[in-house]
Amino acid sequence: LLLRDVGESGLLLLIERHFAKADTPGVLVSIGDDAAVLTRVSPSAVLSTDMLVEGVDFDFSWASFADVGHKAASANLSDLAAMGARPRCLLLALGLRPDDRVTDVLELVSSLAETGRRFGAPLVGGDLSRVLGPLIVAVTVVGEAEPKRTFRRRHARPGDVILVSGTLGAAALGLALLGAGRHTPHSVTRRQLRPEPQVKLGLALARWGRVTSAADISDGLSRDALHLASPGCGVELDVSRLPIAADVARVAEELSMSAIDLALSGGEDFELVLAVRPADVEAAVRRAASLGVALTPVGRVVARPGLHVLGQRGRSPARGFDHFRRP
Amino acid sequence: LLLRDVGESGLLLLIERHFAKADTPGVLVSIGDDAAVLTRVSPSAVLSTDMLVEGVDFDFSWASFADVGHKAASANLSDLAAMGARPRCLLLALGLRPDDRVTDVLELVSSLAETGRRFGAPLVGGDLSRVLGPLIVAVTVVGEAEPKRTFRRRHARPGDVILVSGTLGAAALGLALLGAGRHTPHSVTRRQLRPEPQVKLGLALARWGRVTSAADISDGLSRDALHLASPGCGVELDVSRLPIAADVARVAEELSMSAIDLALSGGEDFELVLAVRPADVEAAVRRAASLGVALTPVGRVVARPGLHVLGQRGRSPARGFDHFRRP
Repeated sequence: LLLRDVGESGLLLLIERHFAKADTPGVLVSIGDDAAVLTRVSPSAVLSTDMLVEGVDFDFSWASFADVGHKAASANLSDLAAMGARPRCLLLALGLRPDDRVTDVLELVSSLAETGRRFGAPLVGGDLSRVLGPLIVAVTVVGEAEPKRTFRRRHARPGDVILVSGTLGAAALGLALLGAGRHTPHSVTRRQLRPEPQVKLGLALARWGRVTSAADISDGLSRDALHLASPGCGVELDVSRLPIAADVARVAEELSMSAIDLALSGGEDFELVLAVRPADVEAAVRRAASLGVALTPVGRVVARPGLHVLGQRGRSPARGFDHFRRP
Repeated sequence: LLLRDVGESGLLLLIERHFAKADTPGVLVSIGDDAAVLTRVSPSAVLSTDMLVEGVDFDFSWASFADVGHKAASANLSDLAAMGARPRCLLLALGLRPDDRVTDVLELVSSLAETGRRFGAPLVGGDLSRVLGPLIVAVTVVGEAEPKRTFRRRHARPGDVILVSGTLGAAALGLALLGAGRHTPHSVTRRQLRPEPQVKLGLALARWGRVTSAADISDGLSRDALHLASPGCGVELDVSRLPIAADVARVAEELSMSAIDLALSGGEDFELVLAVRPADVEAAVRRAASLGVALTPVGRVVARPGLHVLGQRGRSPARGFDHFRRP
């Protein structure tokens, strides 16, 4: 069954059940009206939007529609994690082709909605468009936060220690594996297909109140860590301290790839990179550990502008991803 | 100068000035962080998203990049008008090609931002993606409203009078003109290229508090008016009462098109269609008039389900737009 067989109105009827019901706490109006209405977003609304494009951000030769739905939700939720905000809802704008299969679209929507719900952000609205080209998934997430507690970029000062959650490089290595037609090891490819946003960690650290700056790792550590430094300051990263999972190290070696380059420049790990004063490092690590998340010191903010990578024996770190430049 | 010459980071620097500054009232964090932060969205957040696709929703053979930016903002703002909500900010996700011209993209963003600002909704965040296909403009609008005062669909009861703001059919006729390479008369093509959302009218009527149901006209009156009727009820429209501007009537006749069909089924007029109790019609019309907006009674809600068109001499009204069905 294709979209052209059921039409836009038929598809709407089919996807409706993946949207928040009117009796969902905090949701006054969901799908089916001109706009959605969330009750009391308090005290501040935190907003982010992300567009995933077939052939650029994902490819159906290696990702399922459910993978794409999950990743679209996760990428947005990760932005809220990086602010220390609490997710409240998702909006989904889909660009689809008349010859897309109804079951595929339902899989995407259901997976996206399920991931949102799991993090407290039911799907409450959206838009369907026809695209004569690659499939488009544009998601907006709305959250709430105490403004004084939100993590800002560019607020860390020289001396602040830079910490990274979880492990790095798996998403980029997973992409290399999937691109080469390999779906194993799952522990690695799963990090590309099913990234988990660090929403709980962000919320716990926002409550704690001692993070000086934070961002999520979507473009690669070497690029995203730089976002933490106050204007005029820089960032020093120590490659010997990068948290690299054993499976990533092993598979990278097999493929003659540098696990360090993957950890420094690989995007889409959706971990948090954050800064705290040196005296707060231990407490930060302990708080993360109580949620089952490793937090590893990987460098510090320095007065000298730019990125300084220690222990890399003369190699300059690969740059992060730029959508429009020639590679 | 093309996007591939300046890169994503270069484009970001260039479009930054079209986003809200950090000192904009109600905007704590704008472009440049992981998410935007709006202070106290009160008491409820009203949310809508819309995706415009090149070749489907607009075509650069007849629309400028500035037109597209304006229309993307207007379509979203119109959804808030249909809820009686106050716009607070816009988010913009753009799918662009490396060979798009920088000046074109700046024109689009600046026009979108200007329209948003004019209605109280500065641009506060977004995302840039590469698309190998048609240009994509996905906009999300965030507004605020008193929940009890928001207009809902499907809440009008039999006997309620249906009113329409402004005049109908111009946007669809404008599309026909532009598609045929004609940019005149401007009074008509402008309604397609530069639709104005009825935000002020929506807010004024929400304050008044006597509207029983409302929607905006994006898919055509015959389709959107049906949204007002309570479940199990229907809508009766009287074609002799449709507000059709003199220029639309004249040009439609020239082109051997039916002005009535355009007014009934033409989409994208972005007028409001709303229902009030019969005793409130006069007061509604007076309130709209005080804003310089005509409000015309065009029918009523009836107990019989479905759409009933009076005075159409046997012709069934053309259907609204469906993205995926064969025409």
